[in-house]
Formats: sequence, C-alpha cells, structure tokens
Amino acid sequence: MEDSFVVVGGDAAGLSAASKCKREDPERDVVVYERGRWISYAHCGTPYYVKGEVEDLTDLLSLSPEEVEERGIDLRRGREVVDVDSDAKEVEVEDTEGDVTTKSYDDLLIASGARAIESPVAGVELAGAYTLHGLDDAAAIRSHLTPPEEHSVDGFTDEVDVERVRRAGEMEPPTSVAVVGGGYVGVEMAEAFSAWPVDIHLYQRPSQLLPEFGEAVGSQVESHLLERGVELHLDTEVEAIRGDGHVEAVETADSVVTEVEMALVGVGVRANVEPVEDEVELGESGAIEVDRYGRTSAEDVYAAGDCAVSHHTVTDDTAWVPLGLTANRAGRAVGATVAGTETEVGEIAATAMVKAFDLECARTGLVTEEEARRHGYKAESVTVDAGSRSGYYPGAEKTTVTLTADVDTGRLLGGAIVGRDRAAVRIDTVATAVEAELTVRETMNLDLGYAPPFSPVWSPVLVAAKVLDGELNS
Amino acid sequence: MEDSFVVVGGDAAGLSAASKCKREDPERDVVVYERGRWISYAHCGTPYYVKGEVEDLTDLLSLSPEEVEERGIDLRRGREVVDVDSDAKEVEVEDTEGDVTTKSYDDLLIASGARAIESPVAGVELAGAYTLHGLDDAAAIRSHLTPPEEHSVDGFTDEVDVERVRRAGEMEPPTSVAVVGGGYVGVEMAEAFSAWPVDIHLYQRPSQLLPEFGEAVGSQVESHLLERGVELHLDTEVEAIRGDGHVEAVETADSVVTEVEMALVGVGVRANVEPVEDEVELGESGAIEVDRYGRTSAEDVYAAGDCAVSHHTVTDDTAWVPLGLTANRAGRAVGATVAGTETEVGEIAATAMVKAFDLECARTGLVTEEEARRHGYKAESVTVDAGSRSGYYPGAEKTTVTLTADVDTGRLLGGAIVGRDRAAVRIDTVATAVEAELTVRETMNLDLGYAPPFSPVWSPVLVAAKVLDGELNS
Repeated sequence: MEDSFVVVGGDAAGLSAASKCKREDPERDVVVYERGRWISYAHCGTPYYVKGEVEDLTDLLSLSPEEVEERGIDLRRGREVVDVDSDAKEVEVEDTEGDVTTKSYDDLLIASGARAIESPVAGVELAGAYTLHGLDDAAAIRSHLTPPEEHSVDGFTDEVDVERVRRAGEMEPPTSVAVVGGGYVGVEMAEAFSAWPVDIHLYQRPSQLLPEFGEAVGSQVESHLLERGVELHLDTEVEAIRGDGHVEAVETADSVVTEVEMALVGVGVRANVEPVEDEVELGESGAIEVDRYGRTSAEDVYAAGDCAVSHHTVTDDTAWVPLGLTANRAGRAVGATVAGTETEVGEIAATAMVKAFDLECARTGLVTEEEARRHGYKAESVTVDAGSRSGYYPGAEKTTVTLTADVDTGRLLGGAIVGRDRAAVRIDTVATAVEAELTVRETMNLDLGYAPPFSPVWSPVLVAAKVLDGELNS
Repeated sequence: MEDSFVVVGGDAAGLSAASKCKREDPERDVVVYERGRWISYAHCGTPYYVKGEVEDLTDLLSLSPEEVEERGIDLRRGREVVDVDSDAKEVEVEDTEGDVTTKSYDDLLIASGARAIESPVAGVELAGAYTLHGLDDAAAIRSHLTPPEEHSVDGFTDEVDVERVRRAGEMEPPTSVAVVGGGYVGVEMAEAFSAWPVDIHLYQRPSQLLPEFGEAVGSQVESHLLERGVELHLDTEVEAIRGDGHVEAVETADSVVTEVEMALVGVGVRANVEPVEDEVELGESGAIEVDRYGRTSAEDVYAAGDCAVSHHTVTDDTAWVPLGLTANRAGRAVGATVAGTETEVGEIAATAMVKAFDLECARTGLVTEEEARRHGYKAESVTVDAGSRSGYYPGAEKTTVTLTADVDTGRLLGGAIVGRDRAAVRIDTVATAVEAELTVRETMNLDLGYAPPFSPVWSPVLVAAKVLDGELNS
C-alpha cells in the first residue's frame, strides 16, 4: 500500500499541501478531511461580498471539489477529524451522521484553521447578531441587509446553509448596525455596511483603530471613517448586545445603551487545535508550535496555516499571525517536504494590508517603537508625509510612512504606510528590506523607481528612510 | 577666507550637493554656476506639460532662485564654466556677454548634466523639428500645437525664451507628427501628442519599443500604442526630416517618405563634459568616471548626476544611466562628503518606470537573459501573467512580470513589470531584492502584503519568483 498523507482541513494550507504533495509524488495516497461544506474559499473577500462589490458567493471559491479531485486528491467533505493518536499514527474521523471511523497515516498535516473567539460580549446568540467567519455568515448578513421583497435564495447552492439564508432574507433590514471591534475585520465591515442604508456604530476597546498598524495609520483611518459618516466609539468596551430574541441595542461597560438592529462582532480568532491539543506542543497564543519545516512536536505530524505559529523574520521567535499568504506558503512547503524535498516554510514579517474606504493601509515587521521595545530593541521611529507622485502631476496624494529601526545596529525593523494612491503596495518594499536585514542607510540608498505619474524622485519610503537615517546619526 | 565649494550646474545633482553642503557646513562658501536661465526643473515632467496635464511650465520648477539663495548658496545663472584647471584649482567662467572671469575652488563638483545627442537625422534645424531637452523645447512644442488664435505668451516669464515661444505659437498647428525614437521619451511623447488632434507616427530603429524593459514590456506597449491609434514604424531608421524651411515629411533609410508637419527627435542624450574632458578620466559612454564617493580622477574634483557614471549593484561595474533619483542622491552625498562627512553615493540598479498611455512599465537590474549574459552570467528568465488583485475583486488586471536569475547561485538579477493596475511601483520590491542580493528562493519566500483590493494572496512578483524557482530547480 502507498504511503498515506492525511490532511485535516480543506482550506488554503491544507489544499496547498495536498496539491503540492500529489504533484511531486503522484503515487502518494493523499486524503483531505474537511468538516464543512466549503473548501478553499477567500475568507478575506467576505466583506466585499457583504458590500456587494463581489456579486456571488461562489466568486469567492478558488477551487471546486471537482478540481481538487481532478488533482488526484481524495477529498472528504463533511468529515471531521475528532481525535489524533500520534503513537498509533491514526486519526478518528466523524461524519455528519456521527459515525466514527479510523484512518491511519504516514504523514499528517493539521491545517484546521482558526475560528472566531468566544465572544466576551453577551447576546451574540440573538437574531441579527453575527460574527464573520465563513461563507454562511457572509450569506446571512447580506441576506438580512437585503429587503425581503428583493431577496431570493435562488443561486445559493446546497453547499451553503440555505435555510439560514432564507430566514435572514425574511428579516426586515436594519436601519442601524453596531460593529464591535476596530481591527481589520471591523474596519472592512464598516465599509461594507456603508453600501447599505444603515447608520453605522463602530466600537473599539482600545483608543485606536487598527492598533497593529501604528498610530499614524490609526489616526488617519479614524478621521476618514468619521468623514464617511461612521459613528466611532473608541476606548469603549461593549458589554452586551441586548434584545428580546432579536438585536435591539448594544450596551457598553459604562452602561451607555445605543439602539441598533444588527450587530457584527469581529473581535478576533483563535486556532482550531482541539483534535491534537494533547498530542502536540502549543504556544502561548494557543496555536501549534512548529519548526522551520512546519513539524510539530509529534513525529510525522505537521501543522500549517491559521492553526500554527510562524517564525518571525525580525524577532527570530515564533509568532501567531494567521494570514492568507502564510497559510498558502506553509502548506505548499509541507506538501513538498512530505513528498521528499525538505522545504522550509519561510519566515513571516507579519505584513498586512487593509482597505478602509478610500484609504490604503499597510504594515510590516515591528511598526512602532513600543512594539520594537517589547522585543528588546532600542528603537527609533519616524513618521513622515510624502507625495505619491511628482507634486505637479495630477492625482498626487499624501502618503504617510512610519519606519522603525534598531538604534544600535541601524537595522530597519518595520513600518507602516497609509494613503489614497498606491500606498499599500509600497509596504512590499519595506517588507523586503526588513526580511533582507537592510539597515536604514541601505534602505535610503535603494534605487527605487521614479516616474511623475507613479512615484516622485524620492519615493515615500525613501523619504522616510532619509529622515530616519538623519535621526539615527544625529 | 572660507573654503570654496564650486558647483558646475544648477539642476538636481548640483543643487542637492550645494544644499547639503551648506546645511552641514554653513560657513562654507558655496557657489553654483548655471549657464541657462532655469534651475532645478523636472525634466521628466516635460511630456506632461506638452500633453496639457501639467498646466504651467512653472509647475515643473522645484526650487526658485530665491529659495536657493535663501539657503545661503551663491547662485550665478547665465554663467558657463568653460574651462577647469585642476592643478591651479580654478575654473574659467563666461557670462552671457562673453566676459570671462576666474574663480578658484577648494572642492569642485561637475554636475553639468546631459544633452540630446547630435541627431543622426538630417533636417533637425527645420522649423517644426524639435528635441525635448529643457523647458524651452517643451514650451515651443506646446505653443506650436496650440492654434494661433488660442495662443498667448502671457504667463511665460523672461526665464524662458519668450521670442521662441511667440514664433512657435504663430505657426499653424500640425495635423501629423513624427516621433523619432521609441525609448521612453518617444513613448511618453506619443502619449503627449495624443492629447492633440494630430496623427502620430512613431519610428523606432530596433524592432522593439523600450528595449531596456525587455520583450514582454515592449510587445505589450506595442499593442497598446496601436490600440490607441499610434502608427508604428518599427525596425525602421529615419534618415532625414525633409522640408523647405519647415518640416514637411520624414524619409526613412528605405526611402519611404511620409508627410508630417512636426517632428520630435528623441534619440538619447550624452554627458556634458566639455570643460573637464581633458582634466578627468571619462568612461566608454563618454560620461565622467567616478569612485564610490563621486570622486573623479582629478584631486578635489567630483562629478554627479547625468554627466557621471554610477556603480551598478549587480555587475559591480560602472554604468551610465542618467536618471533623476541617481542625480539627487549622488549630489546629496557629494555635498555631505565635501562638508566633512564621507558619504557613499550608493549603487544603482538602473531602476526605471515609464507610463505608456494606460500601461505602467518598469524595469530594474538585468532584465533579460541576453542582458545578463552580456555581463557574464549564465542566466535564466521567466515571464508570467498574474493578477493585480484577487480575481473576484473588481478592477483586477493582468500584470506581467519578467524575472531573471543567475543559474549558478540562484541570485535574482533583475526584472520588469507591465500592467494597468499598480504595476510600476511593484518594481521597487524587485529592486530591493536585487540590491539586497536575495536569491530567487528567498524572493519567493518574502512575506509580501495581501488584501483583495490591492494584491492577490501571491502577489505578481511572488508568482514569478515561484515559477522561476521551479525552473532553476528542474
């Protein structure tokens, strides 16, 4: 019998691993267990489906089950791996009827992803209260926003919870919505709701939006959301969603009650590790610890994607930053390793981008002095405004760049960018400089592109590096 | 008496050097001689002035003479340095009346820029035939394109050749124009002319437009220019511009005659080195050889900007690539060095961007296998099409990336990008990877940003690196 590669989870990491392994070693028996109905969907696209910019839910599917099977992968949907025995090298699999079978493996990949954390807010079970973690949630939210007379379940296949979609579609659309959480899901969903005729309240416990992006991004996003009519409640903890069966209000820890008819709770995710939590070592974040090849503490058991940690290029420590590229890349590397070519999963810089209405925001590495100090650096940071194009060329927009460096070595540690014109993709330059361990001086001397319509002589990244270099040498 | 820093040329390199030196060492006597009337203008912006996207010529001035003088710099316009004696450490300066004086220096910077090469095409002296090298040319071309009844010399100050502007404005606008040369000036000017009611013929001696950008960029620009109605004559040498006092036709080496009423010859530039050509060593390109600090072969004589070579980050050899950022940076470094802080001018990667109507084009390093082989590398190159955004997100556009690597070491040597959506700025990521000497594998593993509206999970640069990594390891 052929060696068996068993994959737990049919999303980015799991399917990347299965596909790579099967391509490199076509004789291999590759089985993917997915407990849900959907596989390989673009989680990051769900706000744009709610907004209506993405028309059909199926547009968010990157691979169909048929395409996966054409690759020679044995895909089993509706099958949940409920237990792993790494000594016996087998998994217990439960189907939707509750029947349990056993499958042995030679190599096992845990790619079970993450899920919304249990809400610290009471009332999330009320009708009209949502999290956004999966296509069912997205379908229900948009259906609820749609007036019943315009709603139809046509076009929803039985891969989605059609009954839930029908119920949501029968509800009266809300005239106001509370978004609980001002991280990137909260900010993206505020934009999504703005396409519908609803008043939007956004609650954020810290005093800043998008805290991981640093203060410059946070404050510009704050101003911009206010401009766009979002009512912001910063430094405000939501204690409960109130209502009698249906959302009627949110109540803050200060007992301020605001009437709303819908609530979206976007307060973070945690790793899905239940079936292996006693078998493998977990990190502080609750995610699975892995080495540079994605190997867990248990023999022949790998982990990749949102359920696993990564190695951070700056801190040289593990970090849990569940993001799409990391999942794809780690899965692909594990697939190659299992197929016989040892492949490192690569480091992360925790690079992220987010759109906040017209603002493009991005971050990479250690963004702020405070973040850098937490990791033991004596850090210096600058934030500068520069132009996105030559000043005389139409469409030039302010681009704000934060760069942070290690004072002792001059090494660039990270940065953030916000602006309206080609701002976000410039973070890739900073991420590359950070991963390549360039100093600020070396970054300042990079020969970056210049053309009046696209970038001024000194691109915003170079302007910031020049100023930071001056600070470091003063 | 204070040490004297004499600068020849009042454009990007010269003024950057003068400003930096004066800021670091305010006691220094800093004198800038500029033979023309204009200082510090945005040469790269002139096509957009001709197009009309930049309204006033003065919008292209980055610094006024007053601002320069406020910095404590002694700026002398209309003064040409006609001879340098590096033994006596003095320069001969001729004013517009032809009077010659002598000025001694302690440090001398040659920042005399470049000028259009002597045209290989006969007939460039005809009325209606232009090069584009300076604001006078730009003003004359746009004035000629403007119908006499709409033309006015109001708003042109006496810093421009107002008499030439007046004569150009009195001419009947052409109904057809020949652009001679398909490098970036030719391509940008084709776009500029398209804003006017003229038929555009573009002549290019090689069979490809934008040869330094590689074949993928060249062929897409070719298709796009054809779509936009530009008549292309590739692989075609123009022998002469014909006419009786005024442009009437162009004649090719194959004796094909095409009637046109205006001609723009954009066939390249050469370094201005006359006053020092017997004093300092010149390279093969005719530009001044310098070391990593901008020092020429003559003691205390520096050169920076379009008249000097740079050090290429990949070939480790000198190269003459006259571009704006290089000039600014080299000038600034020389200013710091002269003021007492030895500062390297930095390497170049020959990074360049150009807009061709709706296409964004960019290049860096050694773009093609052929270019890399010329520099002694065993090279491998791939060209891939990828998406600019997640496929489901509106506005996603094809982005074509060429990457080239050294087969022996896996080092990334360079690349090119073309597309309509945020394509050009992505070259900065490639340039950074090239300058940081990353391998293709390291480039493939960069943690670049992902957000559906800005970049797909695997950004176009990563997709290309992944494919090239596969080629290198197959």
